[in-house]
Amino acid sequence: MRTIFKQEIEQLGNDLIAMAKDTSTAISAAATALEQADLDLAQRVIDADKRIDESQRSVDEQAVSLLARQAPVASDLRVVVTALRLSSTIERMGDLARHVADVARGRYPETALSGRSHEVVLKMAQQAAKVAEQVVRLLEDNDLDLAASIEHDDEIIDAMHRQTFELVLDENEPLTRQEVVDLVLLGRYLERFGDHGVSVARRISYLVTGDLTNAVVEVPEV
Amino acid sequence: MRTIFKQEIEQLGNDLIAMAKDTSTAISAAATALEQADLDLAQRVIDADKRIDESQRSVDEQAVSLLARQAPVASDLRVVVTALRLSSTIERMGDLARHVADVARGRYPETALSGRSHEVVLKMAQQAAKVAEQVVRLLEDNDLDLAASIEHDDEIIDAMHRQTFELVLDENEPLTRQEVVDLVLLGRYLERFGDHGVSVARRISYLVTGDLTNAVVEVPEV
Repeated sequence: MRTIFKQEIEQLGNDLIAMAKDTSTAISAAATALEQADLDLAQRVIDADKRIDESQRSVDEQAVSLLARQAPVASDLRVVVTALRLSSTIERMGDLARHVADVARGRYPETALSGRSHEVVLKMAQQAAKVAEQVVRLLEDNDLDLAASIEHDDEIIDAMHRQTFELVLDENEPLTRQEVVDLVLLGRYLERFGDHGVSVARRISYLVTGDLTNAVVEVPEV
Repeated sequence: MRTIFKQEIEQLGNDLIAMAKDTSTAISAAATALEQADLDLAQRVIDADKRIDESQRSVDEQAVSLLARQAPVASDLRVVVTALRLSSTIERMGDLARHVADVARGRYPETALSGRSHEVVLKMAQQAAKVAEQVVRLLEDNDLDLAASIEHDDEIIDAMHRQTFELVLDENEPLTRQEVVDLVLLGRYLERFGDHGVSVARRISYLVTGDLTNAVVEVPEV
């Protein structure tokens, strides 16, 4: 019984890692699609989101089936419930990568932004891609240095998010209405992407350090 | 054992209803704060979000404790896992109500918007408040007519959301940069609020109609 449980938990972990890898690929490709106005790449990100949604469905079904058949308690239970939370958070990161790609696709053959606003958003997107890549490694290795690094990188995203507001609110900054809209929405999507990365990092930290209640109850918005 | 389980499930349901009521109060007050540039009311919404966060923590702890002690299976298990999902969704609605109140507070003593954009956003906020109120009643009564009505009202929110884009993209519409930013963000917050209402409605529908897998696995973004 115990061995089967361990195998199933391992499968769940591997599926979450695969989901996180798909999400990492998606945000990284969305960043490039934004940078280069690459329509094919944007479309691939949009199409690939379905696979992330399906992975979440599969993880959730496995987790619930595991709860039903194995009735885990204590730390085992919290690991399974945390897997449910993580699948939801990672799926949301996939949605946000898709939203970024949607903007790139919508402005093709132009880039969505230009000049300083293009630069800031690209840096934000690249930083978000860095967060996603670290989320994958954190799920693989449970290395808490990565959790700290994700929190740090999210602060950088937040600082760049504030820069986007300075840019849009500067009436001397030459921006069309469409550019203002895109800058505000891309800023919001990428800031939320970073927040979700922090949420994953905190849950894993709690699990690893044995703070099991915090691993499972909702992490407040960061 | 069974009686205790039923009592605990009932408690979980009551706590979710209380959370949904707090969220309904919050979005309704946020709408009024936007309309009337009411600083005190905006501040009350912001402060009250902590209580919603605490309620979520409590619901999540109860649900996990219930899983650990009662090891429910089949439909009972799915009810508990659905409660975990609903608490997360309703908490997020609370956050979005707070974000709306944040904008109202930030523009005091002025209203955030004026003219046509003020009107559209107020209608969206009132429609979001209607969704929240129906979510409360749906949780109380499991009346599937309400679920259909929530889906319908969310479509109205989406249509108004499209109107906000028409307004901001019309270069002849006299809007400051700050107004464009506020219109885009308020539109996004309220559109997401409606989506989360639909997510609650679908989960409850699935539970009531016996489509238990769909009740528990993540509902795709609507």
